[in-house]
Amino acid sequence: MLRANGRGLRELRPVTIERHYLKYAEGSALITVGDTRVICSATVEEKVPPFLKNTGKGWITAEYSLLPRSTKERTIREVTRGRLTGRTQEIQRLIGRSLRSVVDMSLLGERTIWLDCDVLQADGGTRTAAITGSFVALAEALAGLVAAGGVPAMPLKDFLAAVSVGLVDDELILDLDFQEDSHAGVDMNVVMTGSGQLVEVQGTAEGRPFTREQLTAMLDLAGEGIESLIAIQKQVLGDIASRVGTGNDK
Amino acid sequence: MLRANGRGLRELRPVTIERHYLKYAEGSALITVGDTRVICSATVEEKVPPFLKNTGKGWITAEYSLLPRSTKERTIREVTRGRLTGRTQEIQRLIGRSLRSVVDMSLLGERTIWLDCDVLQADGGTRTAAITGSFVALAEALAGLVAAGGVPAMPLKDFLAAVSVGLVDDELILDLDFQEDSHAGVDMNVVMTGSGQLVEVQGTAEGRPFTREQLTAMLDLAGEGIESLIAIQKQVLGDIASRVGTGNDK
Amino acid sequence: MLRANGRGLRELRPVTIERHYLKYAEGSALITVGDTRVICSATVEEKVPPFLKNTGKGWITAEYSLLPRSTKERTIREVTRGRLTGRTQEIQRLIGRSLRSVVDMSLLGERTIWLDCDVLQADGGTRTAAITGSFVALAEALAGLVAAGGVPAMPLKDFLAAVSVGLVDDELILDLDFQEDSHAGVDMNVVMTGSGQLVEVQGTAEGRPFTREQLTAMLDLAGEGIESLIAIQKQVLGDIASRVGTGNDK
Amino acid sequence: MLRANGRGLRELRPVTIERHYLKYAEGSALITVGDTRVICSATVEEKVPPFLKNTGKGWITAEYSLLPRSTKERTIREVTRGRLTGRTQEIQRLIGRSLRSVVDMSLLGERTIWLDCDVLQADGGTRTAAITGSFVALAEALAGLVAAGGVPAMPLKDFLAAVSVGLVDDELILDLDFQEDSHAGVDMNVVMTGSGQLVEVQGTAEGRPFTREQLTAMLDLAGEGIESLIAIQKQVLGDIASRVGTGNDK
Amino acid sequence: MLRANGRGLRELRPVTIERHYLKYAEGSALITVGDTRVICSATVEEKVPPFLKNTGKGWITAEYSLLPRSTKERTIREVTRGRLTGRTQEIQRLIGRSLRSVVDMSLLGERTIWLDCDVLQADGGTRTAAITGSFVALAEALAGLVAAGGVPAMPLKDFLAAVSVGLVDDELILDLDFQEDSHAGVDMNVVMTGSGQLVEVQGTAEGRPFTREQLTAMLDLAGEGIESLIAIQKQVLGDIASRVGTGNDK
Amino acid sequence: MLRANGRGLRELRPVTIERHYLKYAEGSALITVGDTRVICSATVEEKVPPFLKNTGKGWITAEYSLLPRSTKERTIREVTRGRLTGRTQEIQRLIGRSLRSVVDMSLLGERTIWLDCDVLQADGGTRTAAITGSFVALAEALAGLVAAGGVPAMPLKDFLAAVSVGLVDDELILDLDFQEDSHAGVDMNVVMTGSGQLVEVQGTAEGRPFTREQLTAMLDLAGEGIESLIAIQKQVLGDIASRVGTGNDK
Repeated sequence: MLRANGRGLRELRPVTIERHYLKYAEGSALITVGDTRVICSATVEEKVPPFLKNTGKGWITAEYSLLPRSTKERTIREVTRGRLTGRTQEIQRLIGRSLRSVVDMSLLGERTIWLDCDVLQADGGTRTAAITGSFVALAEALAGLVAAGGVPAMPLKDFLAAVSVGLVDDELILDLDFQEDSHAGVDMNVVMTGSGQLVEVQGTAEGRPFTREQLTAMLDLAGEGIESLIAIQKQVLGDIASRVGTGNDK
Repeated sequence: MLRANGRGLRELRPVTIERHYLKYAEGSALITVGDTRVICSATVEEKVPPFLKNTGKGWITAEYSLLPRSTKERTIREVTRGRLTGRTQEIQRLIGRSLRSVVDMSLLGERTIWLDCDVLQADGGTRTAAITGSFVALAEALAGLVAAGGVPAMPLKDFLAAVSVGLVDDELILDLDFQEDSHAGVDMNVVMTGSGQLVEVQGTAEGRPFTREQLTAMLDLAGEGIESLIAIQKQVLGDIASRVGTGNDK
Repeated sequence: MLRANGRGLRELRPVTIERHYLKYAEGSALITVGDTRVICSATVEEKVPPFLKNTGKGWITAEYSLLPRSTKERTIREVTRGRLTGRTQEIQRLIGRSLRSVVDMSLLGERTIWLDCDVLQADGGTRTAAITGSFVALAEALAGLVAAGGVPAMPLKDFLAAVSVGLVDDELILDLDFQEDSHAGVDMNVVMTGSGQLVEVQGTAEGRPFTREQLTAMLDLAGEGIESLIAIQKQVLGDIASRVGTGNDK
Repeated sequence: MLRANGRGLRELRPVTIERHYLKYAEGSALITVGDTRVICSATVEEKVPPFLKNTGKGWITAEYSLLPRSTKERTIREVTRGRLTGRTQEIQRLIGRSLRSVVDMSLLGERTIWLDCDVLQADGGTRTAAITGSFVALAEALAGLVAAGGVPAMPLKDFLAAVSVGLVDDELILDLDFQEDSHAGVDMNVVMTGSGQLVEVQGTAEGRPFTREQLTAMLDLAGEGIESLIAIQKQVLGDIASRVGTGNDK
Repeated sequence: MLRANGRGLRELRPVTIERHYLKYAEGSALITVGDTRVICSATVEEKVPPFLKNTGKGWITAEYSLLPRSTKERTIREVTRGRLTGRTQEIQRLIGRSLRSVVDMSLLGERTIWLDCDVLQADGGTRTAAITGSFVALAEALAGLVAAGGVPAMPLKDFLAAVSVGLVDDELILDLDFQEDSHAGVDMNVVMTGSGQLVEVQGTAEGRPFTREQLTAMLDLAGEGIESLIAIQKQVLGDIASRVGTGNDK
Repeated sequence: MLRANGRGLRELRPVTIERHYLKYAEGSALITVGDTRVICSATVEEKVPPFLKNTGKGWITAEYSLLPRSTKERTIREVTRGRLTGRTQEIQRLIGRSLRSVVDMSLLGERTIWLDCDVLQADGGTRTAAITGSFVALAEALAGLVAAGGVPAMPLKDFLAAVSVGLVDDELILDLDFQEDSHAGVDMNVVMTGSGQLVEVQGTAEGRPFTREQLTAMLDLAGEGIESLIAIQKQVLGDIASRVGTGNDK
C-alpha cells in the first residue's frame, strides 16, 4: 500500500501548531496536520453551568464546526439546516470530555472554558487535530489565569493528544487522511495522556468486525503517534509546558 | 463492593426478550434487563437514502428515545426542546452502525430498515439493551422479507449483542445499572458478534485515565456477557436463529 | 353492520387497566382498549406556571405522543419534524382540560401534575383511552401526596372517563376502532364524570352534517360506555377509589 | 346579569360583513362582530395535498392569526416563538373542517382553497367570526371559479355560520365577548348549516361540569344566532347566495 | 413613460392616514398610499432590553409582516417557514433605527415602544409607508405617556417620513408602485426629518451601477416627497403636532 | 482626533489579499484589513434557484459568518440560537447583491456561485472587507470556468470593492475600525466599481441626522479608498485582472 507524499504506514503527516493565532481569545492555536487545518480558541467565562453552581469546580466545553469550503464538496452551514448534525455533536462531546480528563476542576474554580474548534480545511483527522490543538489553546488560557492570579496553580494535570489509526486494505496505518479514511475497514480514534494512559478509545468496524489482536496493534501504533504529538505541544508551549502537572492535584 | 440484589461483579442482570411485542411492526421485541425496559421495532421501507439509489444495496437506521417517566426525574421530550440532544444522536448512530455491520446489504436490496428503540424504563445500559433487542426485531423483520420472497436469503451474517463494562471504585464490573454508571471511573460499551469479533469499542475515562491492562480485562469481561446475551437471542428467535449466517455473503 | 370480533354496536372493546406500570413515576397505568394500548404516567412537580404563582392553586397539564410503530404505517417522530402536529396539540389540551375539571386545585396547592400519555399501539380511541387511563395515574399520584402529608385531603372531586361514539353507515356505535373511525360520518368524543355530568362534548361531522336527534342518541350511548369505564377504574383503584369526592370542595 | 351596551342575553352583537375587502385575493371579507374584526381571504391554488392527487377532489384549508395589537396586551408573533400555539392550531383545524363540510369536493376538482383569517381586533368570538366571514370569502372565490368556467357548478351545498354560547353566572347567553368568555363556566362553539344541521359542537366545562338539559338549551340558543348570521351572509352575497345548494351534489 | 392613473413622474400616490385605528393599542394608524395599506401600532412596555438597564434611557423596536393575501401571489406566513426572511429582518431594523433617530431616549425613560407594521395590501413602498405611518402611531403613544404624567415632555425631536425614488427606464420617478419597483434599475429609500436632514439613504443598483449625479437628483426628489408626507402627518396629528420638537433635547 | 497606529483620517488600514488560500474551493482569498481578517471562498454549483430555471442565466449568492472568537467577547454561534441574526442576513444580502452587479449572468450560464465569507477576526469593516475579498475569490473561480471551457468569456464586467466612511466626533474618516465604528455619529458603507460608479450607498445616522453636504464629502472619500483597494485587487489577480470587462456584455 502506497500513501500520499511517500509517507510510511506508521508515520504522521507533517504537523505544526501556531500559538496565539487570534488576537482576542484568551488562548488560541492554528494546528496543521498535512492538509487539515483547525483553529482552536479558548474563551474564559466567569460562570459555570447550573449543575456546578456552588461546588467550587469549573467546566470545559467544546464546539466544533466545518467552514463550508473546508471540504471537497461545499458543506451546508449547520445554521441553514437549523441544527447540529449527529456527527458534529458527537465530536463536540468527545473534545470536551477528553480535555476535561486532564484538568483539575477544583483548581480552575467556578469558571467555564469554551473550546472552539473551527476547521478551515478538512483532509481527515479533524477531530483528533482539534483535541491536540485545543490542548495548546487551553494551556495558554490557563497559564493566563494563573498569571493573573485568579487561579492558584496550573490546573493541567498532564499533556493530552489524539490520533487516528485504522485498517485499510488489511494494512495497519497511522493518522488517516480523508482518502484513506473513506476506505478504512476499521477506524479508531485514541486519546492519550503524556504518561501513556488512555482517555478515550473509539474503535468502529466500518464493514467487517475486527479481532482483539488487531485492536492491540492499533493501540500500540496510536501510542507512538501521540508521543510525537505531545513532543510538538511541549516545544510550542515553551515555559508553559514545564508547569503542566505541577498543580496540587486532589 | 456490593451490588443490588446480591448480583456478582461479573454477572448480568436478569434478561428477558419478548418477541412480536407490537401488532403492526414488521419486527419487534421488548427487552428487559433488570429494571431497564426497551421496546425495539423494525419497520421495512421500500426505498433507500439518496446516496444508495441504484446501488442495489439496502440501509439500516435507528432512532432512540426515552419516555418522559422512564427516568427518576421526568425527562423533557425532545420535541419540546425542539431538537435531539447530543446524547440521543450519539446513541442512534451507534445502534444503526452496529446493526449494519452484520447485515449483507446486497441481499437486503434497496430497502431501509428503521429500528425504533423506545425506552420505557431506564436503569442504566439502555443503549446496549437497545442494540441487543434491535437484533431480535431486525431478525424477525428480515425473516419476514425472506418468507415473502422479496429477499433471496437471510441477510444476517452473524449474531450481535452489546453490553457495558466499567471500573467502579477500582472494581471491574459487568452490566452497570444507573447507580453504578454514575459512579464509574471508566465506562465502556462493547458490541460483539456471535463469532467473538469486535464491532464497536467505546471506552471513556470519566474522571481518571485507564491503563492498557484495564482495557484488556474489560474486553474479556464484556465478551463473557455478550456470549450470554446471544444465547438468549438464539432461544427467543427459534427457527429464525438457524438461518443467521446462511446467506451468500459477498 | 358487523364489527370485529363479533362486538355489539353498543359494546365497548375489552378494557384492562394495569396500575403502577412504571417504577419511577408518582402514578402510572397501562390502559388497554382492544388493540389500543397507552401508558399514562403522572409526575408531581413542586411548582406552578407563572400565572398561578402565589394563588395557592395547582395545575394539571398533559402531553401525548405516538410511538413510531404504534400505527400501521410508521409515524415520523415529532422531534424529527421539529414541532408538534395540530392533532397532538389538540389532544394534549383536551386531556389536560378534562382532568382539571375534577381536581380541587386549592387542595392540590401550588404543584403541577404532568400527565404523559404515550401510545404503544393505536387502534382508534387513543385520546379517550388516554383520559380514562390518566385518571387512574392521577389518582395514584394524588393519593401518594395525601399519604405523604403534603396535601390535606384527596383533591379528586369525582371520577372521570371518556369514550367515542359515532355514526358509521348511519348506524350509531360505541367505542370506534381505527377502521370504524376512518369510515365514520360523525365522530364524537365525550368526557363525563362519575355523576353523569358533561365535561367535554366534541362532535364533528366528517362528511355530512348531523341532526339534533342524532346528537341526543350519541350522548345517551356515550353515557352508558363511560359508566362501564368508571366501574373498571373503581375496581383498579381499590382503596383509593373510596376517597374520590371526599375532599372539602370549595 | 347586565351586558355591555345594554345587549339582551339572547342577542348577537352588531354584525357587518364587507365583501371584496382585499384587492388581490380571489375572495375576501372583513367581518365585524362588536369590537371583534377579522379579515378573511380565500386563495385558489391549482393543486391539492399529496393524499388527494388523482382523486379528482379538492381541498379547503385554513390559517388563523392574531395581529399583535388585536389584543389588550400585545400578543407575541408566532414566528417569534418559532411555532404555532396549540390554540392557533386548534382554531385553524376547526375552520378548515367546518368549511369543508359544505363544499362538494368533486365539483371543486383538484384545487385547494386557502382561507386566511387574520384578526385585527379580538374581543371574543374570533374563531366563530372567522368561520362566518370565511364562508363569504369562500363563496366569492368559488363564484369566480364557476364564472371563469373552471368549475362546472357552484360547489357550495349549503350556508354555514358559527356562534358561541355559554353559561356565565348560571345565565345562558349568546355570542360572548372577551370579558364574558373569561368568566364563563361553560363555553360552547357551534357550527351549523343553513338547513339547521350540526357540523361542529364543542362544549367545554371551564370549572364545573354541565348537565344534558343545559346542553340542549345552549344548542337551541346557538341555532337562533346562526339563523341571523346566515341572513346577513345572504344579503351580503347577493346573486351568489342564490346559487348556494344548486350544484349537483354527489 | 406613463404611470398608472395618469400620475406625474414626480408625484406621490394619494396618501391618507387614519389615526386611532385600533381600540387597544396605545397608538395606531392605518396608512394608505395608493393601493398599499399598512396598520401601524405602538405598544408601550415598561421595561427595556438588558443593555439599557439602569441607563435611564428608553428603546424603540419594530416588527413588520405581510398578511398572506396582501400580495398578488399568496405569501407563505413566516411562522410556517419557521423564521423571518432576510427581507423582513432588514425592514424591521430599518424601521426601528429610523424612528429611534428622532426620539429623545432620556425623556422617554426606561420604556420600550414596540412598533408593529402589518401590511394589509402591498403595492410597493410598504417599508416607507410603514415608517411614515409608524411616526403617527408613535406620536400618539408618546402624547399619551406625557398626558399620563409618566414622561415629563414630548420626546419627539422632529418629524420623520420616508419615501422611495428610483430610475425606471432611465426616468427618475417618485414613490414607486410594485410594477415600477420590479422594473427599476436603481431603487432608493430615503428617510428624512422635518428639518430636511438625512436619517437613512439606501440606494441599490438593481442591474447597472449609477452615477453621483443620478444620486443627487434622486435625493432632491425624495426631499420633495417627504415634505408632502410630513404635511399630512401634521394635519392628522392636530394638537400633538405642535408638541414635536418642544422637549428639552439633551 | 487621533487614530490607532498614527493613521491619517483619510487613510486605509494596511490591506493584504492572499489568493488561493483554500485547497478545495474553486476560488478563495484571505483578506486582511488591519486586524480584520476574512476568508472568502467561491463555490461553483451547476444549477440555479427555481426562478432562474430555463432562463440561461446564472446567480451569485453569499453567506457570512463570524467565528466565535473573531470578536472581543465570544459570539454565540448562529446554529446555537437556531437562526441567523438580522445583522447577518442584511450583510449576506448586501454581499450577494453587490457582486451580482458586476457579473454578466448570461455569460455565466445556469450556474450558481456561492460566496462564503467567514470572519476570523473582526475589528470593524468586516462586510466591506468581505465584498472586496469576495471579488478576488469570484474572479479566480470565473477564470477557472473560462479556462475549463464551460463559460465562453470572462463574465466580470468591472472591478468592485467596498469601504466604510463615517463621521466620528464630527470628523470625516475613512475605513473605521471597531472602536471608531462604535462612536460614529454617521456610518456609511459604499460599494463602487472600477469605473467609479455606485452600486450600493447605505448611510445611517446613529444618533443624529446628517446633511446633504456631509453625504457628498463622505462619498468623495469613499471613492478614494475604493480606488486604492481595486489597485490591490488588480495586482493580486495578475493575468486574470486583464480579462475583467472583456466579455461581450449584453
